[in-house]
Amino acid sequence: MWSGLLPVGRHPDTGGYRRYAWTGADADCRAWFRDQAESRGLGYEVDRNGNQWAWLGDPAAGDAVVTGSHLDSVPDGGAFDGPLGVVSAFAALDELRARGAEPAGPLAVVNFGDEEGARFGLACVGSRLASGHLTAERARELRDADGITLPQAMERAGLDPDSLGPDPERLASIGAFVELHVEQGRALADDPRRGGAPVGVASAIWPHGRWRFDFRGEANHAGTTRIGDRRDPMLAYAAAVLASRETAARAGALATFGKVSVEPGGVNAIASLVRGWLDSRAADEETLAEVVAAVERAATDRGTSEGVSVQVTRESFTPVVEFEHGLRDRIAALAGGDAGPVPVLPTGAGHDAGVLSGSVPTAMLFVRNPTGISHSPAESAAEDDCLAGVIALADVLEGLACP
Amino acid sequence: MWSGLLPVGRHPDTGGYRRYAWTGADADCRAWFRDQAESRGLGYEVDRNGNQWAWLGDPAAGDAVVTGSHLDSVPDGGAFDGPLGVVSAFAALDELRARGAEPAGPLAVVNFGDEEGARFGLACVGSRLASGHLTAERARELRDADGITLPQAMERAGLDPDSLGPDPERLASIGAFVELHVEQGRALADDPRRGGAPVGVASAIWPHGRWRFDFRGEANHAGTTRIGDRRDPMLAYAAAVLASRETAARAGALATFGKVSVEPGGVNAIASLVRGWLDSRAADEETLAEVVAAVERAATDRGTSEGVSVQVTRESFTPVVEFEHGLRDRIAALAGGDAGPVPVLPTGAGHDAGVLSGSVPTAMLFVRNPTGISHSPAESAAEDDCLAGVIALADVLEGLACP
Repeated sequence: MWSGLLPVGRHPDTGGYRRYAWTGADADCRAWFRDQAESRGLGYEVDRNGNQWAWLGDPAAGDAVVTGSHLDSVPDGGAFDGPLGVVSAFAALDELRARGAEPAGPLAVVNFGDEEGARFGLACVGSRLASGHLTAERARELRDADGITLPQAMERAGLDPDSLGPDPERLASIGAFVELHVEQGRALADDPRRGGAPVGVASAIWPHGRWRFDFRGEANHAGTTRIGDRRDPMLAYAAAVLASRETAARAGALATFGKVSVEPGGVNAIASLVRGWLDSRAADEETLAEVVAAVERAATDRGTSEGVSVQVTRESFTPVVEFEHGLRDRIAALAGGDAGPVPVLPTGAGHDAGVLSGSVPTAMLFVRNPTGISHSPAESAAEDDCLAGVIALADVLEGLACP
Repeated sequence: MWSGLLPVGRHPDTGGYRRYAWTGADADCRAWFRDQAESRGLGYEVDRNGNQWAWLGDPAAGDAVVTGSHLDSVPDGGAFDGPLGVVSAFAALDELRARGAEPAGPLAVVNFGDEEGARFGLACVGSRLASGHLTAERARELRDADGITLPQAMERAGLDPDSLGPDPERLASIGAFVELHVEQGRALADDPRRGGAPVGVASAIWPHGRWRFDFRGEANHAGTTRIGDRRDPMLAYAAAVLASRETAARAGALATFGKVSVEPGGVNAIASLVRGWLDSRAADEETLAEVVAAVERAATDRGTSEGVSVQVTRESFTPVVEFEHGLRDRIAALAGGDAGPVPVLPTGAGHDAGVLSGSVPTAMLFVRNPTGISHSPAESAAEDDCLAGVIALADVLEGLACP
């Protein structure tokens, strides 16, 4: 089943995936989803925010057990982040049918649109819209690097952007949402209890956010401007980068500058504007705020000594998500079967499951990632672990839907 | 005369000029040059490398006195860098005619193609080709950011790229080349001799070059990868940026990172590759080599501690240019007139005059720049100083051509 998806949006040079929301590669992924739904005789629909659903049973019956993830990718992402959860969802339905399981209520597979936010800069757009965490007004203002708005992009992809907005009835009809995802770290691989564990359950998602740092100096000739006459924003940016690492290491947090843009960007011109984006996460919101404040302080200190202004804009922020303990423990038990509950672990990554956790009982399953590498073509999971993930997910769905 | 040129290629948002070689803006500048030549009854021609010439008198007579500069710009450059030399050249010819001067040999105004190298990454392409410092083979391999080659770009601009190559007969027919340029520093504004001087003469061009630093780490998820598992090239880049400033300040040299690119460049992805370009210049080649070596050492040290490889590629290098002392002193005297010789000063910026100095007797005149700002929309020169530059250039041309 997966083989049809593997070549879609894969860049020949890097081997990485470039499946950005509402592009041609995304459309191919969505066509694959529809094929998977229809070839199984599942009811197919697209909701008002462009998320895809495949239904086994009558959605109107309520108390649905839903599983799934997303198919879009970060720039040069790996094959597993997202697709593993959707492929495993269909495979788990196949497994339930093979077992002759008889669900009491409806089951569904979902593909949430634009989870990574690679194109419009905001993650989890599909689930944020559905749950009201993102208003339709703000969504309509999102633009990609070419200035194309989200509504324009959705319209070109054959959707109706006028329908964007909260979807409370749909969410109310869901009894539980379980998202399976490749682990984006090595906690399962390093788990001491059984020499590593193939599957785990999420306890919480760290609070996290994105901050844009604008360093403004003065463009000038790199070959003639005396050092004392310079206002070079690149120096303040470099100081912020080094401070982010030091501060995060000291606080047991994470802080990364992975994107930067420079104006005018000529080799022989001192920059007038350097924009750097800080991604930071920590176990609690207080620590996170301290890390960001420390990076801002370092940026401003160096900026002041260089005659460079620093402006920090919080572009997104997601508070800590603590998954409901009852469902978490039940799923850990179901996924572990006779061997006892699977490990329970936190993660620093945002997910649709986190966004929905305020509206729907939500849980996550993780599949072991031997290197911990993610958002990279080197992301991987062993076939046996993926199959163990499917069985664990099928056990969970059976336990939740076939009482 | 200048008013026709001012709006060409000016970006409405930044107020800066984007006149890149062989683009539409460049074509408009070149059409302006041709108009200026033809409206004065000068002989107009384009040489085998796309440089434009306007002749007063018979080029074949030899021992020509040539003046001019370039019309292209850096990204968001100012109005003066380049155009001031071409506009002043035509204005000086007008002044000579008004004086009734009778040149003994031919005079010419030249506009050298692609001086700034903003599009294809190599500066002074027109003069380098003519003088043999750049081979036609290497020129044909130059590509812009969209993958368009120099020959393709020239062909689209209506030129014949098959003719590219050295032009020794043309250079041999030139008795002297004098380039007038806005100063890219504040030496004239700060000159103590007369409370600042409107015009000066170049003594030398500092040796300078461009080095590309490739920092290679490992792409990974910014939200889940533990600090100890990271190989983040942005940190080594930042260390190199800070080291470049420290080292240059200590050595009395210049070093700038004004351009950087990141792969994959996602906000929530640790970079796999950061490319930074170092522009460095110093009064002598030994100092320059020391500065670059020190930056490379700092980059490699931090790279080693981060698990990041560092590769340094010298993309271009121009040795020190010491302008011929005889011509320099004669021009300083001619430009100063009764008030005595104008100031003689070195510059860190490369120029076509520097490239040609090995093939042709060459000199440069600088016009005062009150702020020293250059390669920026804030670049400026007072109208009185520009007029003083025209008169000085006319004095020089008359002295050289009307013995």
